[in-house]
This record gives sequence, structure tokens and C-alpha cells, in this order.
Amino acid sequence: MSTRSQLDHLRVVLVNTRNPLNIGAAARAMSNFGCFHLRVVHPYELAFREARSAVGASPLLASAEEFQSVDEAVADCTLVVGTTSVGHRELQHPVKRLEQAARLIRKRHATSRVAILFGSEKRGLSNEDLSHCHWLLRIPTREEHRSMNLGQAVAVCLYELARDPKAAASLEKHTAATAADLERINSILLDALRASGYVKSPASNSPKRRSAAPTDEKIRRLVHRLNLSSTDAELTLGILRQILWKSRSGNDPAVRPHD
Amino acid sequence: MSTRSQLDHLRVVLVNTRNPLNIGAAARAMSNFGCFHLRVVHPYELAFREARSAVGASPLLASAEEFQSVDEAVADCTLVVGTTSVGHRELQHPVKRLEQAARLIRKRHATSRVAILFGSEKRGLSNEDLSHCHWLLRIPTREEHRSMNLGQAVAVCLYELARDPKAAASLEKHTAATAADLERINSILLDALRASGYVKSPASNSPKRRSAAPTDEKIRRLVHRLNLSSTDAELTLGILRQILWKSRSGNDPAVRPHD
Repeated sequence: MSTRSQLDHLRVVLVNTRNPLNIGAAARAMSNFGCFHLRVVHPYELAFREARSAVGASPLLASAEEFQSVDEAVADCTLVVGTTSVGHRELQHPVKRLEQAARLIRKRHATSRVAILFGSEKRGLSNEDLSHCHWLLRIPTREEHRSMNLGQAVAVCLYELARDPKAAASLEKHTAATAADLERINSILLDALRASGYVKSPASNSPKRRSAAPTDEKIRRLVHRLNLSSTDAELTLGILRQILWKSRSGNDPAVRPHD
Repeated sequence: MSTRSQLDHLRVVLVNTRNPLNIGAAARAMSNFGCFHLRVVHPYELAFREARSAVGASPLLASAEEFQSVDEAVADCTLVVGTTSVGHRELQHPVKRLEQAARLIRKRHATSRVAILFGSEKRGLSNEDLSHCHWLLRIPTREEHRSMNLGQAVAVCLYELARDPKAAASLEKHTAATAADLERINSILLDALRASGYVKSPASNSPKRRSAAPTDEKIRRLVHRLNLSSTDAELTLGILRQILWKSRSGNDPAVRPHD
């Protein structure tokens, strides 16, 4: 993972989490996206460190820090962001969509610590918890089904922070076949089609000679539309050579090309 | 949720899923992001429709379609995308990062059906499953911990498809206070600071008169840095008026402003 996606200054703070499996799932997602600092504020079950759902993230879970209050858990952070799925709280705090929130978090994260708070599965963050936040973020779920699973919400937030906007625009690493490769394919394909009888083989002085051109062009356009990579062009050439050879040599299986 | 995020043409295909809780979790994430068509290819436990993890998504789970093969499950789709966390398969199929994959999926999804395949928790998609795919997508997890929880992977993919790139750039809906509001705050704050003795009240013909200016400016700069909204400016003015009144009227609690 590139340095820019390292989330070293981020603190994921789980407040009043009920199900230890969700703490484990959050830890796994954190490890997936390179965020290693988990803080837990009075979880319902203290045995969360053994959560089996933390597949591959046991060290992260073992080093999680426990706090008695949100206050202490965010004390060293310069930006504290609460998560919410509830619309009507929008009246009390500024709420930003995750896409925009991530931009602001990344900016602050470049120079100092940022905390993202996730509330309990049943009730989310309390108003008291929210009063420690600078603003809230909302994952853009449907109005009719806003509330996400906790582990999934953590995964989505961290993905948005780790995603690379440039990757979205980046061109496919596809070494396209050259025009010469395509023309070779086109020519052998036409030969194979003639040998197989799909296209009539034109006698050079036949009056039908001119009708071959549209077929040639139709085949050439087809070959171009395939958008072949240089590797696939080579593979296709090999296949066509074999087919052509077979069509011309009849059906004797003992005779092979290059034998 | 806006029409553009509706994922009507998308089919989420879970292949050989072992844990019914993961099918339920996938269903919940689908419902969160407005994708309602789940397909299941021979799951290990047939009782997946009762999965309690599908919080709020029971109808979606009830209407899931079961198939005996990947072949049948993707037959009506024009684009079939496999998900992978394994790097070395990159040799056999083109692999795109989710950010880029989502762009291509959205484009095709505008006009016809697209399937995204998720493999089993233990082994992912088999090579046979992958051979039905046009290309693969990879969620950009850390090299050292690539493998995500299934429900979280579904949530992250659907979030990326539903996210609004424009929302990332959108300006905050923050009606900033006017310069006149700030100047009123500045002036009352200075009065309050003089009344409290924090700033010395200058006699108009005192030789120290000129030293007041730097303090005024310091306070004005502070007020500007607060980046107050017009609502917060009003609140702040009210607080300062009360403090100023208190400082001037002494400590008699029975006397209140506007009484």
C-alpha cells in the first residue's frame, strides 16, 4: 500500500459497542485499509479482545486502547468526527456526506490526529457523545434503510479514506495489438474462412472479384472491434494458423504443423 | 436516494458462501445502497434465508434467486465482474482497482445488466468461476492483509458504485456571518474585555491611547478566524451582551438585562 493511504494519524473510536464480533470485524477492516489504532470506550463485553471475527487482525485488537469516556478517548485529536445514520440530528450538528467528509479528514490527517467515532449498534452515538464532535459524517445510504452494520460502516469509511481518486481515472494497463498484428490476423482469418468455405475463394480474374472487398472490410472491422491486447493477438494468430493448416491438410490427425 | 444511485441492473452473485450470516450481511448492505437483486449459487447452508444478520433486509433475502451454476446465474448479464483479493491471479485475468472498476460498471449498468461475483469465504472464486468473468476487480486493501470479510467487501463495492463524486467536491452549506456581524461581535467583545479588566480602558486623551489599536486588531483577527456561521454569530453576540451587562452591573443575581 502506498504511503499516501497510510492512516497513521487516524483513531477509530468505538463507543458502547454491544457485540464483540463487531469490534473484531472493525479491527479486520482497519487492518485491511492500513489503520492500526483502535480505541474502545466502555464496550458491553470486556472479552472483545478474543473476537474471532478479527481475522488477520489479532495484534491490532490486542493493542486496542480502552477508555472510560469519549472525552479521554479523543483528547489528543485535533478533529473529532461522529458518524450518524439518523437524519433528524442534522439540526444540531453540521452533517457531511462521507465523500466530502473524507476530503476534510484527509487534509487534517496530513498534519495531526483525527478521531472517527462509531456509536452502539442499537442507538448510535448519544447527544453527549456527539457534543464532543466538530461535525458528523453520514454514509450515503438509502433514506428508507439508513442504518448499516457497524463493521461494514467502519469498512466503508476507511475505504473512502484509503481510496485513490486518481485510480478511478487511470487508464487500463492494456498493451493493445498494433495495426500490423491486426492485419496479420485479418489476413489469416480470411484465408481460413476461404479454406473452410465460409467465404468463396475468388478467382483473380472472375467477375465476382469485386464482391470480396466488402467481406474483407467486414472481417477487418470485426477484428478491430475485438480490442485485442498484443498477447491475445499472438494467441489468436496461433489458433488461426492451426485452423487454417487443418482446413488445408484435411482430417489426418497424424500430420501436425511444424512436424 | 437519487435515481442515479439506484442499482436496478446490478446482480450481486454469492458463490459457494459458507456462512449464512455473511449472506444476510451482504443483503443488508445491498438494501442500504439500493441494490435489490441477490443471486446465490449453491450456498453451503440452505437455511440462509433466515439469516438474522439481514437487519432490515428480510424481503430482499426472501426474494434471492438460487442457481446451480455460475453459468446460469450470469446468463442475462452483459458484463460479469469477479472479485479477488489474490494478487497472483492477476496473471490470468485483467484486474482493475475498485475505483476504476466502478466507473466501467456504472457505464454498462446504465443500459444493461451487470453481475458482480463474490466467492466463498475460504477460497474466493475458483478458476472455473473466474473463467465466466470479463475481468476482475480488487478492493485496494493492504498487500499484507488483502482478504476482507465478505459482507464488508459487498458493502465497500456497493458504496463505491453508489457514491457521488460530485458530493466530494461540493461546498459546505455554511451561511457565513457577514463582516458587519463580525464587527459587532468584535466591538462587544472589546467592551466586555475592557469591562472585565482584561484590556485597559483607554482615556481618550491618555498618552497610552495608541497601544489600544494592536489589541483591537488582535481581537478582530481572532473573531475572523472563528469562521462563524450567521446563526453562531447571533448566538455569540447574545452571550457577549450578557457577559458585558454582567460585568457592568456588578454581581447582583436579581438584576437581569431586559427585566
